[in-house]
Amino acid sequence: MENNDAITNILTRASNRRFNPEIPVTDSQIETLLRAAMAAPTAVNKRPWHFVVVRDRVLLDGFGTSLPYCHMAKYAPAAIVVCGDSRRFLEGENSTIWVQDLSAASENILLAAHAMGLGAVWTSVYPYAERVEAVRKLVDMSPLFVPFNVIPVGHSASPRPPMDKWDPSCVTYL
Amino acid sequence: MENNDAITNILTRASNRRFNPEIPVTDSQIETLLRAAMAAPTAVNKRPWHFVVVRDRVLLDGFGTSLPYCHMAKYAPAAIVVCGDSRRFLEGENSTIWVQDLSAASENILLAAHAMGLGAVWTSVYPYAERVEAVRKLVDMSPLFVPFNVIPVGHSASPRPPMDKWDPSCVTYL
Repeated sequence: MENNDAITNILTRASNRRFNPEIPVTDSQIETLLRAAMAAPTAVNKRPWHFVVVRDRVLLDGFGTSLPYCHMAKYAPAAIVVCGDSRRFLEGENSTIWVQDLSAASENILLAAHAMGLGAVWTSVYPYAERVEAVRKLVDMSPLFVPFNVIPVGHSASPRPPMDKWDPSCVTYL
Repeated sequence: MENNDAITNILTRASNRRFNPEIPVTDSQIETLLRAAMAAPTAVNKRPWHFVVVRDRVLLDGFGTSLPYCHMAKYAPAAIVVCGDSRRFLEGENSTIWVQDLSAASENILLAAHAMGLGAVWTSVYPYAERVEAVRKLVDMSPLFVPFNVIPVGHSASPRPPMDKWDPSCVTYL
């Protein structure tokens, strides 16, 4: 197998669900996460995204109590809410492509966090109507934005090795 | 901004649409791309994916002529068809989550290709019914699989700098 730091980073990323709330995420680290997100590929260059950076303790605790699978937000020093910007969604049969763009942007955030020694985890919001409404209400979000996921980020309190998901039976060669 | 090789790789990736058909992609490089894909996060650990590696010249030319925006497949030495495996799709309100998993896996393929000095480009297949049927027919694919995109990969004939998509107006801080 070929290898280098960028590939090792992809292969060693793991979801992190335990954070050390004492160590903040710096402004510089947040900017790097956002730059990575916006470097994602995007269909027809629409860039249908918006990012809400949350470091307010009350809001983070609100995610932790209001959203399923997001309890760890209560211990994270920050979270990024990856949102769709409906003003830049395509139409007709292209109307759901923004989900693919935002997923690629989200993966870039996870990888950039791991590259900086931070832990992060993708907690789904869209397409679950109740979670979408809960996030909108909690952060007083414009209805133009569709909250897609919440990514708590911070220093891990319990770094984990990656899960080995390699499975050659998932490949066909032609 | 924080920086290291893994982050630089994310920030400098660009879609590559011109390939040198003379230089093959090695088996080792293909395996690295697939390992990167399967390292993606996946909801409830379902791993709802299958990957079809195409190096058959007739099939690659078929992608180039049958699929919109995939003309470059005629010059690529290989392509990976990222597919959903419907046997591992979730149900009910979770039924579309596989799209997010496969998008993250696809981004990992693009990033791993770039890390190895290869060019690649994400050409959409799903949710376009005509393209889904065209790919299924071309590669005689089981109806259990849903072709999600075709990613031609190879050595670039014309490396491009990344597009700078950084836009601070796409961020809200709370």
